Amino acid sequence: MIKAYAAQEPGGQLMPMEYDPGPLRDSDVEIDVEFCGICHSDLSMLDNEWGISEYPLVPGHEVIGRVAAIGSAVKSVKVGQQVGLGWFASSCMMCEWCLSGNHNLCPNAEQTIVGRHGGFADKVRAHEVWAIPLPDGIDATKAGPLFCGGITVFNPIIQSGIMPTDRVGVIGIGGLGHMALQFLRAWGCEVTAFSSSPEKTDEAQSMGAHHVVNSRDPEALGAIANSLDAIISTVSADLDWSVYINALRPKGRLHFVGVAPSPISTHVFPLIAGQKSLSATPLGSPANTATMLDFTQRHSIEPIIETFPFSQINEAMEKLRSGKPRYRIVLTPG
Amino acid sequence: MIKAYAAQEPGGQLMPMEYDPGPLRDSDVEIDVEFCGICHSDLSMLDNEWGISEYPLVPGHEVIGRVAAIGSAVKSVKVGQQVGLGWFASSCMMCEWCLSGNHNLCPNAEQTIVGRHGGFADKVRAHEVWAIPLPDGIDATKAGPLFCGGITVFNPIIQSGIMPTDRVGVIGIGGLGHMALQFLRAWGCEVTAFSSSPEKTDEAQSMGAHHVVNSRDPEALGAIANSLDAIISTVSADLDWSVYINALRPKGRLHFVGVAPSPISTHVFPLIAGQKSLSATPLGSPANTATMLDFTQRHSIEPIIETFPFSQINEAMEKLRSGKPRYRIVLTPG
Repeated sequence: MIKAYAAQEPGGQLMPMEYDPGPLRDSDVEIDVEFCGICHSDLSMLDNEWGISEYPLVPGHEVIGRVAAIGSAVKSVKVGQQVGLGWFASSCMMCEWCLSGNHNLCPNAEQTIVGRHGGFADKVRAHEVWAIPLPDGIDATKAGPLFCGGITVFNPIIQSGIMPTDRVGVIGIGGLGHMALQFLRAWGCEVTAFSSSPEKTDEAQSMGAHHVVNSRDPEALGAIANSLDAIISTVSADLDWSVYINALRPKGRLHFVGVAPSPISTHVFPLIAGQKSLSATPLGSPANTATMLDFTQRHSIEPIIETFPFSQINEAMEKLRSGKPRYRIVLTPG
Repeated sequence: MIKAYAAQEPGGQLMPMEYDPGPLRDSDVEIDVEFCGICHSDLSMLDNEWGISEYPLVPGHEVIGRVAAIGSAVKSVKVGQQVGLGWFASSCMMCEWCLSGNHNLCPNAEQTIVGRHGGFADKVRAHEVWAIPLPDGIDATKAGPLFCGGITVFNPIIQSGIMPTDRVGVIGIGGLGHMALQFLRAWGCEVTAFSSSPEKTDEAQSMGAHHVVNSRDPEALGAIANSLDAIISTVSADLDWSVYINALRPKGRLHFVGVAPSPISTHVFPLIAGQKSLSATPLGSPANTATMLDFTQRHSIEPIIETFPFSQINEAMEKLRSGKPRYRIVLTPG
């Protein structure tokens, strides 16, 4: 039996629940959960914001733990190995997307907390390919947020072919943005943070931003017109996107990892004239997640976290719901 | 003196006019115009649709002719050589865009019919780099439209890295689209034409389309969901773009070379989930235009044209304005 924290209804409290996960599938591993990050998607799923939640619902998809058991076919991880698990828990391994290294685009992928139970528990299971070994030298307490928030902002750097010579903007200095700034600085880029909270300027600079632009200051936004090769939007807000398209140099791209509630609207002409594009990415593949972990370790990149013991899981969710954790919350033993 | 056809006011008739072009600049060439294609942009400029027209206005930016004179610094073309001239007539050669081979993105570029006189004339001038030699084996009568319409749809194939293994859609079988179909078929792609004119099906197939989809048939559009790697929109119309985004496979791109009058509007979520993008390109560089001409010659690609003698230039403009030329109009001597 697995001991988990489950909500019985949309927006409900997380209460202890035991469930029987059944026999371990041949290619799955069972992970003893040590730490679990909390992502805004856990809250969205708890509240059934996307209409896909099933109750009882066990959130949690930024898991760090040790492999407790492996299925009969598992080859890539060993019992006792420390691994991380993110948004995806399995993919079919046989479709064209899996076969081309894009397991995150597999149409048959299982998502860790959609139709199955996640990492707010003492154990969680996943296909071995998504139980990604932690490299030596990574602080396991802080590593959970890399597996959802981290890879979400690292993947566009890979997928868009961002070069160390590029000038890159990041919209939003939050759970995602504070990692994006660190990645891009280590990547070698000239980094500009856009924030509506000017009081975060010093912090943004300490995370790697060379420049911080107040996104509520039209004059400051106008001053950077035609200057950036790429902008990554991490916010879930409706902004005046034309301002950011205008901030791009020719061949620039405005890239979304945050979901703006309203449709993005843009005239075609400025895109044509400047050969600009709008793009977006979901999380990353296992291979790119491993690449991110390696890069993270080499450059001493770390999510900035607040911790709550698992026993205060509802307080932690409430902090995320009402406040602005700086910058990610991680559940720890206890 | 150069003998040209000029409009004196927005929407005006084109009437003979002579003008003195002044001394030939060191890096410019003077071209004896043999043929000149008519592009929809000539009509837009004639009507001052974009608010940038100056009168008297001499349209014409799909010129084929022979070099009649060269400036003292000209190195790349010789007197007597047959060349083409398109939308751009010069670029500064020294900015970062020119220095990186992107002369079409030069902020100091001169446009052939913006603030200067174009190719509806017996002579026209341009910087040598934009007077691009015609390779042997190209039919000069038909080549004019390659220099604006042709490069407009060839450039995205280069810029987007479209692969011969890709499945690519083209929206609109018109002046641009009929060339896009030919390029993409020769490129090796599986080609789908989207048209609101089902009577063009046979013609679209003869131009290279493997499949023709009636863009007014929701069922036909629904049937190709998730199937295309790229779609190039050549139309200047407001379509339901979500249908075309839905037709893209993961990692697909919807690319604009036609200017939709209203803003493009799209929800971010389908872009994120499928790693899709919206992109756009202007015309191409001299180097890519030369590459296009070479490819065109090797694959016997030709614009389909109707001809009018220069003396019937107003009838030709009227045909473009009121009807649907199949597919480009070229002015010929006489």
